[in-house]
Amino acid sequence: MTNAIRILGLDPGLRRTGWGVVSVEGSRLTHIAHGVIAPKDTLSLAERLVWLFREVSAIVETHHPHEAAIEETFATANGASTLKLGHARAAAMIAPAQAGIPVAEYAAKVVKKAVVGTGGADKDQVAFMIARLLPGAGGPTADAADALAVAIAHAHARRARRIGAAA
Amino acid sequence: MTNAIRILGLDPGLRRTGWGVVSVEGSRLTHIAHGVIAPKDTLSLAERLVWLFREVSAIVETHHPHEAAIEETFATANGASTLKLGHARAAAMIAPAQAGIPVAEYAAKVVKKAVVGTGGADKDQVAFMIARLLPGAGGPTADAADALAVAIAHAHARRARRIGAAA
Repeated sequence: MTNAIRILGLDPGLRRTGWGVVSVEGSRLTHIAHGVIAPKDTLSLAERLVWLFREVSAIVETHHPHEAAIEETFATANGASTLKLGHARAAAMIAPAQAGIPVAEYAAKVVKKAVVGTGGADKDQVAFMIARLLPGAGGPTADAADALAVAIAHAHARRARRIGAAA
Repeated sequence: MTNAIRILGLDPGLRRTGWGVVSVEGSRLTHIAHGVIAPKDTLSLAERLVWLFREVSAIVETHHPHEAAIEETFATANGASTLKLGHARAAAMIAPAQAGIPVAEYAAKVVKKAVVGTGGADKDQVAFMIARLLPGAGGPTADAADALAVAIAHAHARRARRIGAAA
């Protein structure tokens, strides 16, 4: 009998959505799986969203995460990119939420701080730390590393809450 | 035996999503149903998106539309609103697309031109013309009127394509 909790991290994008599943038991993190979803760019917007939704749903069915986490996003100066990101983010969030899995949101700074120790870390630093924290992941690509990073941020946040609650 | 085609029009928003179903046979339009989906504002973002997705899925199951249409949106100066709209729009699009129903997109100007005759029409003019074109709708609210308007725009566009193809 284990008290391990599986967390699905998501780094959404219309072109590429990174995902990663980690297991956490106390302070011990274990890599379960990760990957990148890249809908064909010949598909219509609606078809890409369905592709993304179905792929994330399949990951949920395969890996049975207990909780999910996604980066909180803010609008950028590029409105068209913001709109696309909003679409992809919704498709990725609906899949676990629809299966009854709570989806937590974390600001990029919080994710970087949890993984690298500083909110100003760059992509390379995140990837480097993911490879160290999750040796089983075998050096994932940037999209998957970012997804694993948000899963780790959630693991830290929920542990901090539990410790806080127990005090 | 009828050649009538049912079209689902959608006017998405995180607070209120208007929807409307019309039937079109040749140039004859008939109102089937319409309504507004308003997820509780106490729900989390993921829960609202699931609510929206499920409600639109239920409408698809009840009214069996053959085709769906949604307004094309562009980024506005308010990035936060753009991001929210992107989320709601994706949730509304995934429901029919996931059921195999093609989802067409129309610019707001095209929708207004199809219904009122001019791309610069305001909300009141759209609502007025919807009440005239679809007397069976009984004067729907603005959100539902906009959804019925995009369904009508799609009916016009597909008829124009058919006439073009037959020529």
